[in-house]
Amino acid sequence: MWQLFQFPLCPFSRKVRLLMGEKSVAYELVRESPWLQRDAFLDMNPAARTPVLKHGQRDIVLVDSVAICEYLEETVEKAPMINGTATNRAEIRRLVAWFDEQFYGDVTAPMLYERMHKRIVHRAPPDAKVLREAMRRANVHLDYIDYLIDHRSWLAGATMSLADLTAAAQISVADYLGGIDWTGHEQTKAWYQMFKSRPSFRPLLSERMEVIAPPEHYEKVDF
Amino acid sequence: MWQLFQFPLCPFSRKVRLLMGEKSVAYELVRESPWLQRDAFLDMNPAARTPVLKHGQRDIVLVDSVAICEYLEETVEKAPMINGTATNRAEIRRLVAWFDEQFYGDVTAPMLYERMHKRIVHRAPPDAKVLREAMRRANVHLDYIDYLIDHRSWLAGATMSLADLTAAAQISVADYLGGIDWTGHEQTKAWYQMFKSRPSFRPLLSERMEVIAPPEHYEKVDF
Repeated sequence: MWQLFQFPLCPFSRKVRLLMGEKSVAYELVRESPWLQRDAFLDMNPAARTPVLKHGQRDIVLVDSVAICEYLEETVEKAPMINGTATNRAEIRRLVAWFDEQFYGDVTAPMLYERMHKRIVHRAPPDAKVLREAMRRANVHLDYIDYLIDHRSWLAGATMSLADLTAAAQISVADYLGGIDWTGHEQTKAWYQMFKSRPSFRPLLSERMEVIAPPEHYEKVDF
Repeated sequence: MWQLFQFPLCPFSRKVRLLMGEKSVAYELVRESPWLQRDAFLDMNPAARTPVLKHGQRDIVLVDSVAICEYLEETVEKAPMINGTATNRAEIRRLVAWFDEQFYGDVTAPMLYERMHKRIVHRAPPDAKVLREAMRRANVHLDYIDYLIDHRSWLAGATMSLADLTAAAQISVADYLGGIDWTGHEQTKAWYQMFKSRPSFRPLLSERMEVIAPPEHYEKVDF
């Protein structure tokens, strides 16, 4: 059985979980707090980042969410999520990188640092100015998603893809941390509502990170 | 004909150029300074990052170095660089992410900021403390590469792969900026020497970024 080393608010682990859920690949969760730099975890991944996907019996350790998703795509036929022509696939991968790097850097990373890392590691309060700036940037990103959905059925084209899963993973963490103002983003909201009701998403939404409570609307499909 | 939008010290563009060189794909270079946020460039890539690979006649615009490399790998048969079993391919992609994110974040990004960006954009001198810390981290990264080459013919396994090209691209930029101390890294040095003599690498090494001169050993195969 696969074991996924992760913590509840890791957006990259959420992306992998959504993909495994869509592909019906069974796995168990192993809680890992990468900031503790546990020796056995560093041995698996010197980059000290989640997710890591391990299969003990088959002696496989997969590191890095992009490498893991490509591996699952190559080895599991069900629910292809990097699909279509080479150009379509490039557009899916462009958007995966966009959400993993730009959205994460602008929004999810500063929110995780201010609201989770500071609280757990430094026992310090968040910096309201940094949070406001991250929320402002989240709003710009939602505008971009509105624009994409105005032109396409799904973020990268005509079918659901890894781009949608990646975006939903990042947004769900920012939303948990109270960083998303949905006002005026009806297109993105409708797209995200649909996501929230998928069986692959339900387990993520019901989890909690200790000491941090999400806003009331977080888990509701109709919000 | 493909056009690659890049600037001489962009490590991600260098990775794409090495791959196109190995695969004998013809392209012309278009100089792009992403920090100028040129409108026509932002239209192609709202992330405002190089490289972007464009084919005007075929109406294709490819964005993000990972998406571009996967596209080239899927469409050009010659010189496969993401090769082998699914597990081998996952290891190649793990190391690509390692050099694109960890090495870049620890070494190349601070060096580019201090020695290029500050000079060109802010007309300010570099912070010697930041440079020293980046060099210290470069040394730790070279230790890791020494370790990999002790156990394998190439960074990700028995054959040359995109992991080697990605590492060489990052290292070459750090080396240009005077950030690599080769003392005590004989394995990595021998591996890098071999790279420097490849036809795909020669054009990169002969280029210069205006106002910044590389150290004397930079272009020499025997250094």
